[in-house]
Amino acid sequence: MINQEFIDKIVNEITMQIMELQVKSDLIEVEASARHVHLSQSDLDALFEKGSSLTFVKELSQPNQFLSKERLTLVGPKGKIENVAILGPVRDESQVEISYADARILGIDVPLRDSGDLINTPGIELFNGNKSLKLNKGLIVAKRHIHMTKEDAKRFNVIDKEIVSVEIDGDRGLVFNNVLIRVSDKFSTRMHIDFDEANACLFIKDKTFAKILK
Amino acid sequence: MINQEFIDKIVNEITMQIMELQVKSDLIEVEASARHVHLSQSDLDALFEKGSSLTFVKELSQPNQFLSKERLTLVGPKGKIENVAILGPVRDESQVEISYADARILGIDVPLRDSGDLINTPGIELFNGNKSLKLNKGLIVAKRHIHMTKEDAKRFNVIDKEIVSVEIDGDRGLVFNNVLIRVSDKFSTRMHIDFDEANACLFIKDKTFAKILK
Repeated sequence: MINQEFIDKIVNEITMQIMELQVKSDLIEVEASARHVHLSQSDLDALFEKGSSLTFVKELSQPNQFLSKERLTLVGPKGKIENVAILGPVRDESQVEISYADARILGIDVPLRDSGDLINTPGIELFNGNKSLKLNKGLIVAKRHIHMTKEDAKRFNVIDKEIVSVEIDGDRGLVFNNVLIRVSDKFSTRMHIDFDEANACLFIKDKTFAKILK
Repeated sequence: MINQEFIDKIVNEITMQIMELQVKSDLIEVEASARHVHLSQSDLDALFEKGSSLTFVKELSQPNQFLSKERLTLVGPKGKIENVAILGPVRDESQVEISYADARILGIDVPLRDSGDLINTPGIELFNGNKSLKLNKGLIVAKRHIHMTKEDAKRFNVIDKEIVSVEIDGDRGLVFNNVLIRVSDKFSTRMHIDFDEANACLFIKDKTFAKILK
């Protein structure tokens, strides 16, 4: 039977969910990027077979981007890191994104760069079993950034290439300064940080949201 | 010969150095703490010889604290971390401080705690060669904090146990919220963060300074 208590319960539940949505609308979902490799077709050919393609495993949050089945080992003068993901699809230039913790393991001095800004970056040796390839450049620590749709950019009142500060709450709450906004309708709206940054703010998967401070 | 140009040069140099000191007086030196172990005398006895003492290698910034020559291996269900420093002198209770990156390697869910707050913390297995000891508690990720002398606390207008926000400049500039102030004349004034946090703000040894925001 539908009594007043039952109706109140439903109304309360709906009200709470609407309130939660309203709070969330001010917030941007944060994703922690693990170390990963982007390959050009010719570098993919060199490390696998001529004419290889990457094997789709899982969609990523950014449209058309995917995690592939293929894995590589990064080798530096001080150490190596195995089982590093390759993200698809192939790109014009190969690029390897690691954290400063990783850079210390490899023993390479790695610059902080925006994705694609590869001039004067160090190279890195990549291994797939016995096959190897020495990249001459492309090893970076990626600057934290927010991918944003045009619609969300309007809503958050920001423009492409704008630098903002972003607050993340919690026991290890902090404000990241120097966060780059990138606007395109090819994006979904997500903030990307690396694992050093994720650990520093106690990132929890599917539960970490950021607020833009201007 | 001492001419006007020479005098001007000296005056300029002194002025600049005074200005630099004035700027620095607003700032607190930041130190990144690597993973480390504090041992009680009985745990030291169990892992080395009965009646052992820690061998002094290097003074740390906090008065009477030192890096010892002795090293231990931490072993968790998923992995181990070798060559972990023991800091002296011995304490009433053993305590192991690691980063979230370390916690992932060991495969242990580690809480964020103030130093000494060890109730309901997980244990960890410690190895010195073939000798081992299973701690029942004491494994923590240390909350970021500022050790401060009473004199500096007055100067910075903060009190013991106060929570402040702290800004660090640079390409990866950020503001750490929830930073605990600890005041004692047994301290030197230094901010302590762990390696995840240091990587997240591009910490540079001997050159990273923090500013308290209130």
